[in-house]
Amino acid sequence: MKTTFSHGNSCATDLIAQIDAYLKRLFPITRSITGNGNRETLRILQEIVPLQIKEYPSGTKAYDWVIPKEWNIRDAWIKDPQGKKIVDFKRSNLHVVSYSVPVHKKISLEELKEHLHYLEKQPDAIPYRTSYYKETWGFCLSYADYQKYFNQDGQYEVCIDSELKDGSLTIGELIIKGKSSKEFLISTYICHPSLANDNLSGMLLTALIGKKLLEQELNYTYRILFVPENIGAIVYLSKNENAMKRVFGGFVVTTVAGPGKYGYKSTYLGNHWIDRIVEKSFNDMGCEYQIYPFDIHGSDECRYSFPFFRIPVGTICKDKYYEYDYYHTSLDDLDFVQPENVLRSFDVYMRVLNSVDINVTYESLHPHCEPQLGKRGLYPLCGGHIRQKAALAKNALPQGFSNLDLILWLLFYCDGEKNLFEIAEKTALPLLELYRTAEELCKHTLLKKSID
Amino acid sequence: MKTTFSHGNSCATDLIAQIDAYLKRLFPITRSITGNGNRETLRILQEIVPLQIKEYPSGTKAYDWVIPKEWNIRDAWIKDPQGKKIVDFKRSNLHVVSYSVPVHKKISLEELKEHLHYLEKQPDAIPYRTSYYKETWGFCLSYADYQKYFNQDGQYEVCIDSELKDGSLTIGELIIKGKSSKEFLISTYICHPSLANDNLSGMLLTALIGKKLLEQELNYTYRILFVPENIGAIVYLSKNENAMKRVFGGFVVTTVAGPGKYGYKSTYLGNHWIDRIVEKSFNDMGCEYQIYPFDIHGSDECRYSFPFFRIPVGTICKDKYYEYDYYHTSLDDLDFVQPENVLRSFDVYMRVLNSVDINVTYESLHPHCEPQLGKRGLYPLCGGHIRQKAALAKNALPQGFSNLDLILWLLFYCDGEKNLFEIAEKTALPLLELYRTAEELCKHTLLKKSID
Amino acid sequence: MKTTFSHGNSCATDLIAQIDAYLKRLFPITRSITGNGNRETLRILQEIVPLQIKEYPSGTKAYDWVIPKEWNIRDAWIKDPQGKKIVDFKRSNLHVVSYSVPVHKKISLEELKEHLHYLEKQPDAIPYRTSYYKETWGFCLSYADYQKYFNQDGQYEVCIDSELKDGSLTIGELIIKGKSSKEFLISTYICHPSLANDNLSGMLLTALIGKKLLEQELNYTYRILFVPENIGAIVYLSKNENAMKRVFGGFVVTTVAGPGKYGYKSTYLGNHWIDRIVEKSFNDMGCEYQIYPFDIHGSDECRYSFPFFRIPVGTICKDKYYEYDYYHTSLDDLDFVQPENVLRSFDVYMRVLNSVDINVTYESLHPHCEPQLGKRGLYPLCGGHIRQKAALAKNALPQGFSNLDLILWLLFYCDGEKNLFEIAEKTALPLLELYRTAEELCKHTLLKKSID
Repeated sequence: MKTTFSHGNSCATDLIAQIDAYLKRLFPITRSITGNGNRETLRILQEIVPLQIKEYPSGTKAYDWVIPKEWNIRDAWIKDPQGKKIVDFKRSNLHVVSYSVPVHKKISLEELKEHLHYLEKQPDAIPYRTSYYKETWGFCLSYADYQKYFNQDGQYEVCIDSELKDGSLTIGELIIKGKSSKEFLISTYICHPSLANDNLSGMLLTALIGKKLLEQELNYTYRILFVPENIGAIVYLSKNENAMKRVFGGFVVTTVAGPGKYGYKSTYLGNHWIDRIVEKSFNDMGCEYQIYPFDIHGSDECRYSFPFFRIPVGTICKDKYYEYDYYHTSLDDLDFVQPENVLRSFDVYMRVLNSVDINVTYESLHPHCEPQLGKRGLYPLCGGHIRQKAALAKNALPQGFSNLDLILWLLFYCDGEKNLFEIAEKTALPLLELYRTAEELCKHTLLKKSID
Repeated sequence: MKTTFSHGNSCATDLIAQIDAYLKRLFPITRSITGNGNRETLRILQEIVPLQIKEYPSGTKAYDWVIPKEWNIRDAWIKDPQGKKIVDFKRSNLHVVSYSVPVHKKISLEELKEHLHYLEKQPDAIPYRTSYYKETWGFCLSYADYQKYFNQDGQYEVCIDSELKDGSLTIGELIIKGKSSKEFLISTYICHPSLANDNLSGMLLTALIGKKLLEQELNYTYRILFVPENIGAIVYLSKNENAMKRVFGGFVVTTVAGPGKYGYKSTYLGNHWIDRIVEKSFNDMGCEYQIYPFDIHGSDECRYSFPFFRIPVGTICKDKYYEYDYYHTSLDDLDFVQPENVLRSFDVYMRVLNSVDINVTYESLHPHCEPQLGKRGLYPLCGGHIRQKAALAKNALPQGFSNLDLILWLLFYCDGEKNLFEIAEKTALPLLELYRTAEELCKHTLLKKSID
Repeated sequence: MKTTFSHGNSCATDLIAQIDAYLKRLFPITRSITGNGNRETLRILQEIVPLQIKEYPSGTKAYDWVIPKEWNIRDAWIKDPQGKKIVDFKRSNLHVVSYSVPVHKKISLEELKEHLHYLEKQPDAIPYRTSYYKETWGFCLSYADYQKYFNQDGQYEVCIDSELKDGSLTIGELIIKGKSSKEFLISTYICHPSLANDNLSGMLLTALIGKKLLEQELNYTYRILFVPENIGAIVYLSKNENAMKRVFGGFVVTTVAGPGKYGYKSTYLGNHWIDRIVEKSFNDMGCEYQIYPFDIHGSDECRYSFPFFRIPVGTICKDKYYEYDYYHTSLDDLDFVQPENVLRSFDVYMRVLNSVDINVTYESLHPHCEPQLGKRGLYPLCGGHIRQKAALAKNALPQGFSNLDLILWLLFYCDGEKNLFEIAEKTALPLLELYRTAEELCKHTLLKKSID
């Protein structure tokens, strides 16, 4: 089945159906930091957005790192001494430690136990484990199964039909040109297997965002990345160092569709205007949310913020990673993640991104004094009326404001330094109205957009 | 009658009488953004201060603006169908929309109504209206008169005996040289006809301030301007661009003598030391007051703060414009404005300006260590006493401080960067005492005034 | 008796006994801004630390000051008209105004009274008085004695067997080299005679600190000074101007062993990281303390902070000067000061100094991205676990943190700009653990110490 995501022409019900179809197609694929599962995932996402797929060979150096061999897996199981399959990769790809080397032998229970991972406190959940940089193998299973099946004498037979060989690491990239060469980054990661919130939800939402941005006229240029976490971001940074220096901010999109409340992990600066736009958007939309200060533990926002790059990157989540009980277990599935929540988070992200995109800087072409608005039809011609009785208190909502207010504040503050969001904060005027008015004033050659 | 304002030699009662006489002479004059009324006003103010009167011809370009034709008016009236004068410019110059073109004809009530301005909510007040940049004519009248007289059939006769022709725009300027080439601006506007608080009070107070400053030995240079609002300030800026770049701050003097409380419209920076000196002065004088944040709606402070100039300019008011019911109506008259209030505001402004003037910067001539005060007779010679038991807490009033305190703190903080008001804030020592001591220390060649 | 201060090998009881012995040997010596008493004091302190003793001749210019003649005194007394000694220098060296010129004559009571100093409000205390820069003589005595003995007719005989002649001013200096050429200053004053808290306690504690620092491997270089207050610091600054420009901060050690609570006089900056480290140390140690804002009245911290030097210098006290009733009187004796309190303040100062010393700056050698920790054995090799569930809130104590936390935050923040204490404040990780980890990361060539 090939779903077509069409936004704008469909009602919400259609959208939800389309999202649901994509969730169901993408969920079962075995993804890792390399491998065919990642390629298949990106090919499906290409139905939504025209991603360019880039391959970086194993062995490529990237700063302190080297791209490892490519890993693929066909099957894996454990049979008990009676030959009964008691763990089966075909039922859940979480059963195998990601990047497990191939193995097929009979071993004692004692030896096998060193290769088993389970969670005593969540007896029905299969944990998610990886071993990218140390060659080993292992199985993950529920503690319930562990107790039920792993108590017999005799030899157990283990089989992991995987291969680790020179191949490549796969990255999806979409660059949407805006008027400015200044770039905004939207990055998601594609390396997790069947985990729905972390991060099937994020990669699907990123594709939907890309599709929407492609339909819009944009001020900034958007660099949208689908990378395997950590190594993928590092490889991308190393191969695009100059381009990444043009990026002034960004988001890492992850864990966006759980049933719980919104969370925002701040940029490393904590009070950048990106952070303030996110909080303002949450408040304007009436979302309940929690702010998480920047933490070095997290996802690729840490890479993008490293000393050489220092890009302020935030993350809007719905059931943030680390914070929900099902995190990195088989319970993070399509019962936990609902398509309605993908759509809700899409709306939040688009509201934020639309605010980011119009937060540009203008310079007055009349810096010496207010230009004569009357001769341009922008000013009431009979004078003497009170222009505005109530002074604008900082951060107080203006109790009614006029086009004239917007025009005069813009002409006063636009000096090529302050951006529109800062002017909105100073004047308590709405960003969107300031933007619309500023664009009008550009047409009257009263302002000039300082976009580069 | 020619009044002589003499301050210092007169008691308050005499002063009030003089102010009262000036208010009564200046009130009836028909002022506008150009015209003979402005010239007559400035000539009367020249009795108080030696203003230089400058004329700028109609048609002169000033940034985006052009000086309009000069407007003068001799008479205006409306007669009802019976030939009875029902509106008469001779009774109030507010009856005519300022800059009305000449007209003399009979017209129907219906047509006439398009040229009538009144305030339904203030039925006894004549509103103040202008039309500087669109050629039209109009009458202003009370709603009571409107209801009483404008209900007959037949032709009404209207006459406005005005003229609009090439002439000039008139500005009064007084530059008072201080020791420094750094300038402080005091600007008022002279374009309003018979409105007492807005702004007869301001222009008279500005003249009184100028007279007082002329009697003082000053650190800074004062640039005192009497301009028609908006166009006058713009013309002046365009003709004095370099000089205005030497201006580090200022006040626009307007609406200073109402019966209500004091108000302060902050500079666009909001927390400049000028703002802090005004608040400190209000508090020290025990004035009740209200702070109004900077607003793009207002008077010429907006012009002086435009991006190219960015001069922080505040405004101290007594019954601030926009905030009192009689604003821009015939009720803003000499019942509303009393000479006592002009004198009160004079005291407030002089206290503030005297603080501004002594807020200079000194540089220690002994930056390496405290000079030996004893050999200069500035230090108690028998040691071992407690110099000061109570440490000075920031912003706490010192409970008794000595000359030695003043000397030591000045020698410590005067580094050519911090101004005296900042040192007063850091030490909680009074600005005036710091200044007197600093001047003494200059005589001992311990400090040097960094005035340029 | 020669005491040997040995720390580390002795238990607290031994230490206290040693401190007690030094207090008793040093207390009776007559010190002033010059003289043999200062030399004897420094010689005794040399038993603890290898001070270099420097002599600066009388008449030497130091900025605005000149080193005065050297003052020494053998004896002094007053006899009543019956020839009975009623004031005797041998019983307390406070009885003579410091720097009194020699005198031996009989004078009337009336004339004598002009040379007597006492405290009516503290009738049993002899005050401490000096007259360094005005040639005079005087006696200090209790008000009780004044009332008892100075009421007879007849001639009183006064004798001050002192001498004022060209000699030198004596300073003790100890420079302890660390890895960095950046210096930290520890200064105390040695000019007070038999006053125990002010400042026998401070000079002894400074020697103990010096001894301890000599045993440690240090990052910074420590410049430890024993100077006569004011003139000594000024002379030292003038002779070591370039060296003092390398000093980034310091402490003046004074009044550290009273029975009351701790006090901290802030540096002139008020919120320098030195100030914040002191407050953090007080809090970590559970000390009750009071913060005194910087005051121009005080000790040599004022000299070191003068405009040319602007070194932030604080002072940790126990019963701060000015604040206790016995200040500058004979009641500030060895009943008031106990050796246990010297030891307590030693612990506080060492804790603070050890924090200062490890507050260095590192620069990441991998600024582009997190280096691969796994291949260096610094990272758990099986992934997928929650790295850290609880995000670190600013200033909140981390509830358990791992080596990995320390490593990752250091690699992220060490950019050659932020020092470790700032990183500790941002991450709420303990400074000492950050330092130990940073040093480990230097060994792995992941960080580089930016020490110069």
